[in-house]
Amino acid sequence: MSENQIPYKIYLTEDEIPRSWYNIRADMKTDHRPILHPGTLQPMTAEELAPVFCDELVKQELNDKDRFIEIPEAIRDFYKMYRPSPLVRAYCLEEALKTPAKLYYKYEGGNTSGSHKLNSAIAQAYYAKEQGLKGITTETGAGQWGTALSMACGYFGLDLKVFMVKVSAEQKPYRKAVMETFGAKVTPSPSDTTNIGRKMLEADPNSGGSLGTAISEAVEVAVTTEGYKYTLGSVLNQVLLHQSIIGQEAKKAFEKIDDYPDLVIGCAGGGSNLGGLMSSFMADKLAGKKAPYFIAVEPASCPSMTRGKFAYDFCDTGMVTPLAKMYTLGATFIPSSNHAGGLRYHGMAPILSQLYHDGFIDEARAVGQTDVFKAATMFARHEGTLPAPESAHAIKAAIDEAIKCKETGEAKTILFGLSGTGYFDLGAYMNYNEGTMTDQIPTDEELERGFAAIPPVEG
Amino acid sequence: MSENQIPYKIYLTEDEIPRSWYNIRADMKTDHRPILHPGTLQPMTAEELAPVFCDELVKQELNDKDRFIEIPEAIRDFYKMYRPSPLVRAYCLEEALKTPAKLYYKYEGGNTSGSHKLNSAIAQAYYAKEQGLKGITTETGAGQWGTALSMACGYFGLDLKVFMVKVSAEQKPYRKAVMETFGAKVTPSPSDTTNIGRKMLEADPNSGGSLGTAISEAVEVAVTTEGYKYTLGSVLNQVLLHQSIIGQEAKKAFEKIDDYPDLVIGCAGGGSNLGGLMSSFMADKLAGKKAPYFIAVEPASCPSMTRGKFAYDFCDTGMVTPLAKMYTLGATFIPSSNHAGGLRYHGMAPILSQLYHDGFIDEARAVGQTDVFKAATMFARHEGTLPAPESAHAIKAAIDEAIKCKETGEAKTILFGLSGTGYFDLGAYMNYNEGTMTDQIPTDEELERGFAAIPPVEG
Repeated sequence: MSENQIPYKIYLTEDEIPRSWYNIRADMKTDHRPILHPGTLQPMTAEELAPVFCDELVKQELNDKDRFIEIPEAIRDFYKMYRPSPLVRAYCLEEALKTPAKLYYKYEGGNTSGSHKLNSAIAQAYYAKEQGLKGITTETGAGQWGTALSMACGYFGLDLKVFMVKVSAEQKPYRKAVMETFGAKVTPSPSDTTNIGRKMLEADPNSGGSLGTAISEAVEVAVTTEGYKYTLGSVLNQVLLHQSIIGQEAKKAFEKIDDYPDLVIGCAGGGSNLGGLMSSFMADKLAGKKAPYFIAVEPASCPSMTRGKFAYDFCDTGMVTPLAKMYTLGATFIPSSNHAGGLRYHGMAPILSQLYHDGFIDEARAVGQTDVFKAATMFARHEGTLPAPESAHAIKAAIDEAIKCKETGEAKTILFGLSGTGYFDLGAYMNYNEGTMTDQIPTDEELERGFAAIPPVEG
Repeated sequence: MSENQIPYKIYLTEDEIPRSWYNIRADMKTDHRPILHPGTLQPMTAEELAPVFCDELVKQELNDKDRFIEIPEAIRDFYKMYRPSPLVRAYCLEEALKTPAKLYYKYEGGNTSGSHKLNSAIAQAYYAKEQGLKGITTETGAGQWGTALSMACGYFGLDLKVFMVKVSAEQKPYRKAVMETFGAKVTPSPSDTTNIGRKMLEADPNSGGSLGTAISEAVEVAVTTEGYKYTLGSVLNQVLLHQSIIGQEAKKAFEKIDDYPDLVIGCAGGGSNLGGLMSSFMADKLAGKKAPYFIAVEPASCPSMTRGKFAYDFCDTGMVTPLAKMYTLGATFIPSSNHAGGLRYHGMAPILSQLYHDGFIDEARAVGQTDVFKAATMFARHEGTLPAPESAHAIKAAIDEAIKCKETGEAKTILFGLSGTGYFDLGAYMNYNEGTMTDQIPTDEELERGFAAIPPVEG
């Protein structure tokens, strides 16, 4: 490689870390539907949200006016420990693919949580601390969000109660150990520490738990314990707001090398990584400027955008949370337990859903998990980083687009999100290596059962 | 934090990655004792080493003349995927300690192997590829070196046969899975694929294996299979040569911020991390210039420098390898299985041993593992990175020195090596969190048994 070329890793300076989060809702021209109270079906007010979330986060959740929201200095200082994250030119992958395309990825896995989740975790912990709370609660499935929040709470000296799906806690004792090292209290769910937990255990003493139950337990503890609030790591407007730092940094890095992506590709489960990655580029599109073609990649086993309905639905499996207008498979839909990656959420962030519905996100694409792990393995061998299965969905689509460029001879600039590393997902890699992994594509009948649970709410 | 201060992370540009490795032996004034043939007790020649190692690596192993050895471009290109590694100012840890000391760490954990081992792995794989070999062999205990070498071989399309201590392969199936994802063939040792393995299995069909046996199997396959050579991840001169990139980068980064360390602290097991970290600073000392105070930190459970003998000894437990002059506990010494971190080697890199013997390394310090994990946990909570237990030995000493500075009011500049992350060491963290970890300090009697096995070789 010549020394005058674009470097492998494009870093901003710490001074160039954005000073504000970008609130895309202020630029969205179509009606961004409000979340509805599950009882009254009326838009949720700040007062109604206050028992659950911190005051400042409620404001952010409901804010559709301010384009920019300043990042407090304490959060910027924390960001400086692991940000700006590099924009990486995938030279070795390009060479392996013999593509004329220029492949870039924004790498968010370079911190102990192993993913972008830390960007919002530190913000949510900060506002809890600022409000003088004693602690916060949350749920975690695979443990990525729980780890990020543990780190954030450890840093601010805030208590954290994590309800971890019992079967995950048993299968992944090390994830539990990381959280405990950072000072979190991890309770396998269902537990006998909450009403809902006791009720579940009464019905089935051997229950392995579910994310829906863990959410319910975490919310119950938050609203019934003095000095505690609840936090959530994806889907919410506030989370996409915090994650906007990814896309802002990426755009600035492209300016440094005098380039601009033709394509932006992100994996989409709850939507927090793609929502963050696309932020500043989507701002261009919303403003009618030149903008990339946006691709949301989801697992074929949990295809909310490609096969779901755009409808008001509950945010949780337990159907006690507010309703959001989003692409959904129905709150009762649960992907096969053999589905390896995260991206298991039945719905999609309302912001992404609306942008896709209105054509601003150009394409949603579902990919099967064996193809995803094939792409992940190729990426690992050539780029030297073992990707999270979630991130590998974006890798799969990026490789496919790079191969198309080879066929057409186009030298497109492709940006994809490498949202995290797969160091805690090796069970899935093991299945793939041993050839025992299969795609887990739901049948139409299975989807219909999920759709039947979507409440008949207009809007 | 003000915006004009030294940033949290000091990065060199990719053009500033050193173009040569620094060969400290060329500057060592005292006799650096040669390795001896186990049969003849004469210095090993290149011809005698050729069946085991690649030709170019044999040259490097024996080279005590050339101060700098050029880094081939293909290796530099690989380095650019994860280097230069950042020099990080531990602002948050300083604040927590309320120390006037300036704490810096050179962070080598930001790649999928999780440690500095990749710096030498890619070099060893490159020379094997250049020599037209089909593949290489190695052994691995905890799996760090095996992972690094798997990545390097995956990149160059080289076969890799890893003999993994059977009990580790069973306890850490995920480490095995990482290596396999990068294309390595992992064989639990002892195995029925080698003479020595079969012999061990005959004696004890249920043997859990040992590093010594795994080395023997890897060497046997290398010398008996056409197109294969053997590789090793620490102790050797060539490994310290490759690791010199760490110290060279660190020194250059300090020049950028117009500072120079008063103290350099590294963990020492086989010696590859400290050997690399100290390189350019030790060059100053050897040249009689202003230089840091050097501290080697080892586990109290495997105290080769603090309680060992400086003597010629076998490099392996099986006593079939050459003899090296080094600090050693005797080739038969095996630290307690309850010792958590790596740093289990009975000896110490001959280069470090000589430098310590001659007073160039100022101090060796042994620390107990419960204190080490306490320091690791403090570091994780404040600096946001979960350290490898090995690295946490350096952290423990750095924290102690920072506390001394608080007492004396000195604003010393302290550099320590954060050689890797602890993502695959969570079993040990779990023990620490649960309070079941104990220090594993060998008795004098245990040490005497090891010393008795040291052969009576003059030199």
